[in-house]
Amino acid sequence: MAPVAITPESSGTTTPTTASGLTQAGIKHAHPPSKSEAPLDASRMKVTLTQTPRQVPEPNSPEVMAQKTCTDHMVTARWTVENGWDAPELKPYGAFSIMPTASVLHYATECFEGLKLYRGFDGRLRLFRVAKNCERFRKSAARIALPDFDPAEVAKLIIALCARDGAKWLPKERAGSFLYIRPTMIATDEALGVQRPKEALLYIILACFPDMTKSIAAPAPPALNGETVTTSTKPASSGLKLLASNEDTIRAWPGGFGSAKVGANYGPSLVAQGEARSRGYDQVLWLFGQECYVTEAGASNFFIVIRDKDSQALQLITAPLHERIILEGVTRASVLHLAQERLSHANNGLEPVQVVEKRFTMADVIAAHDEGRLVEAFAAGTAFFIAPISAIHFRGRDLIIPTVGDSGVYARQIKAWLASIMYGQEDHEWGIVVEEEV
Amino acid sequence: MAPVAITPESSGTTTPTTASGLTQAGIKHAHPPSKSEAPLDASRMKVTLTQTPRQVPEPNSPEVMAQKTCTDHMVTARWTVENGWDAPELKPYGAFSIMPTASVLHYATECFEGLKLYRGFDGRLRLFRVAKNCERFRKSAARIALPDFDPAEVAKLIIALCARDGAKWLPKERAGSFLYIRPTMIATDEALGVQRPKEALLYIILACFPDMTKSIAAPAPPALNGETVTTSTKPASSGLKLLASNEDTIRAWPGGFGSAKVGANYGPSLVAQGEARSRGYDQVLWLFGQECYVTEAGASNFFIVIRDKDSQALQLITAPLHERIILEGVTRASVLHLAQERLSHANNGLEPVQVVEKRFTMADVIAAHDEGRLVEAFAAGTAFFIAPISAIHFRGRDLIIPTVGDSGVYARQIKAWLASIMYGQEDHEWGIVVEEEV
Repeated sequence: MAPVAITPESSGTTTPTTASGLTQAGIKHAHPPSKSEAPLDASRMKVTLTQTPRQVPEPNSPEVMAQKTCTDHMVTARWTVENGWDAPELKPYGAFSIMPTASVLHYATECFEGLKLYRGFDGRLRLFRVAKNCERFRKSAARIALPDFDPAEVAKLIIALCARDGAKWLPKERAGSFLYIRPTMIATDEALGVQRPKEALLYIILACFPDMTKSIAAPAPPALNGETVTTSTKPASSGLKLLASNEDTIRAWPGGFGSAKVGANYGPSLVAQGEARSRGYDQVLWLFGQECYVTEAGASNFFIVIRDKDSQALQLITAPLHERIILEGVTRASVLHLAQERLSHANNGLEPVQVVEKRFTMADVIAAHDEGRLVEAFAAGTAFFIAPISAIHFRGRDLIIPTVGDSGVYARQIKAWLASIMYGQEDHEWGIVVEEEV
Repeated sequence: MAPVAITPESSGTTTPTTASGLTQAGIKHAHPPSKSEAPLDASRMKVTLTQTPRQVPEPNSPEVMAQKTCTDHMVTARWTVENGWDAPELKPYGAFSIMPTASVLHYATECFEGLKLYRGFDGRLRLFRVAKNCERFRKSAARIALPDFDPAEVAKLIIALCARDGAKWLPKERAGSFLYIRPTMIATDEALGVQRPKEALLYIILACFPDMTKSIAAPAPPALNGETVTTSTKPASSGLKLLASNEDTIRAWPGGFGSAKVGANYGPSLVAQGEARSRGYDQVLWLFGQECYVTEAGASNFFIVIRDKDSQALQLITAPLHERIILEGVTRASVLHLAQERLSHANNGLEPVQVVEKRFTMADVIAAHDEGRLVEAFAAGTAFFIAPISAIHFRGRDLIIPTVGDSGVYARQIKAWLASIMYGQEDHEWGIVVEEEV
């Protein structure tokens, strides 16, 4: 058994929450900034530039493939229960000194975000809906008992780091490529008691990352209006193969924390993921319950396009958020929004689709497949972006889903629209220009 | 979405597991030691003693209460997928250098154990059933995709550290006190890909810890035979107050990882625990499902003694292990064993009890309470040892459970027996003597 903290929560800084407040863990914080606690404030950021700048690796070189190369700098901000947030620092990237008793090493008191910095075809740097990531970061922090902050301040810190390192690490000649941004928060308390952290470190790093978008069609030409005209109907090179999880291996459950971007959702998935890899699959398709509800694909949201048996209408379907067992993906939300806006009527030669967030089961997927109504399936997330799915293995059977030629057109169309926004070919409020320091 | 590792598992070191192997995650390892990987080997341990020995704090001083003071030394052992285990090191306690991209900081790739080093009334140091903790440590490592090891080697490393620091940090004049031992393993990979760790650090630290056993009766006189005669029927000073969890806050789920001692079970519990504290309760009583099955109390196992309605026999009841939603506590197993062995017949003036591992619900507890059949309740774990429970709050109602006088005698009797083994008053195979270095 783990030791339990003896000292009561320091009442001076804790706002009692109600029973219902616990339910709303995504938005309630036991440590809201009080008068005596300094808030996170990007304007106080101290800057110390590196004296030993490093070399930018070639795209898709071995060090990039290993996802371990970060840029010259990082941003850090320390929090303590007594004083709140210290002034953030932009400083040389490097190792942390962490005590063996630190909470994060024992109790998974950690959360993170994942987004990208894009080098546009117009030569400018852009973030995609950064405010959504920062809002989710705040919710994840609350769920794992880490301190509160104003998400807009984290966005400013992200932008400051991107502005500093973007010009060198994402040079203008690499239009159409990106860096991966990882905001993280960890509890650094030196104390083995199982209790709310009293000390934390928020940090942001930029990592070189393999380009998983190479398999998509070439970016569409710049949009002249809100509706991008795209020629990207070339086939994707291949699709993901998914291994459906067993009943005895579930990722998340109602009343748990599956909707939060906390480390505790990832480590426990690695055994199943390793098994999927060893059996020749790319990712686990996470099912839930005896009904085998389809929830997520690996660490991405999962979408299908099927023809409804009754109405014969095409439907784009993904699992709903209200049970809090799937991640509220920014890409997921963007797919749903664009599909609603641009595919609810005939467009670009594509038949309209109805956008539906609802529970659906493997039985639904199998029936659609066997009756010729399963049009396509794809995963959506920051890392894999929009990735077509070519096979699902479920209880001894492989469902094959075509992804080339006339198949997979909805995934390709949505991907092309999103890429156009990310890389500046469509001027859109979701694309946030970062003015780089030179 | 988190990035997903691009490179396949390094097949040279991965043994493919079967679908059923996933179910048995507690014992299957994808990284078993192979010919090319060195096994964990305590006999290779290198020793570097501290040049700056520190002062031992007074028992229950503020630094001890904060649970942040460790002894002069720690043991570390590094593992890589290429080479297996490096030679372990016993070296000065101090901070780790951890890269911002380390897997443990993002994906909760971490597991731990908790046990104690006891200073006996005979002047000797003892561990309690250390082999059980090391076996569980191995299972937890497998569940969170950390590397395999021979548990007996970890036991040797624990003993080596206790032998080195025990004499100074648990001096003979402090008979009846203990140090807390924390074996830990973390994934240290510098890589943001969500994948099985390729690098890990196993470490063992000894922490000064507040004595939570002060509330128990004075240790019984040395046993003259297997059946300790104890006089410890003095009342405990107080009991734990528990706040039953809501349906929307679930600690673990079948098919999840609730039975493994991984960080991912702890961080997500802190919000509920903080709420319990702020409402005046000590711990959360974790319920499961619409039926409100009673599972664990805080980070301890939960026991009740009730008089069965039909048979009128006394029963000692705790939740079963087969669903893998509760931790397989070493104290839990020891309580069950001793109760079976020593309380299934009249003993020490106590009425016999039947020992039962089964599902039971809050409705069962409430009915027993209201009908005068709830004899006692207690939590059992390493940190809290055997702690009587004096109140349970469930949906607007406080169940009061007497813990003093003639009440709570079973918890006190079992506690006295266990303490006698731990502190050397009863010679028992569970008490492992550590020969200290002087």
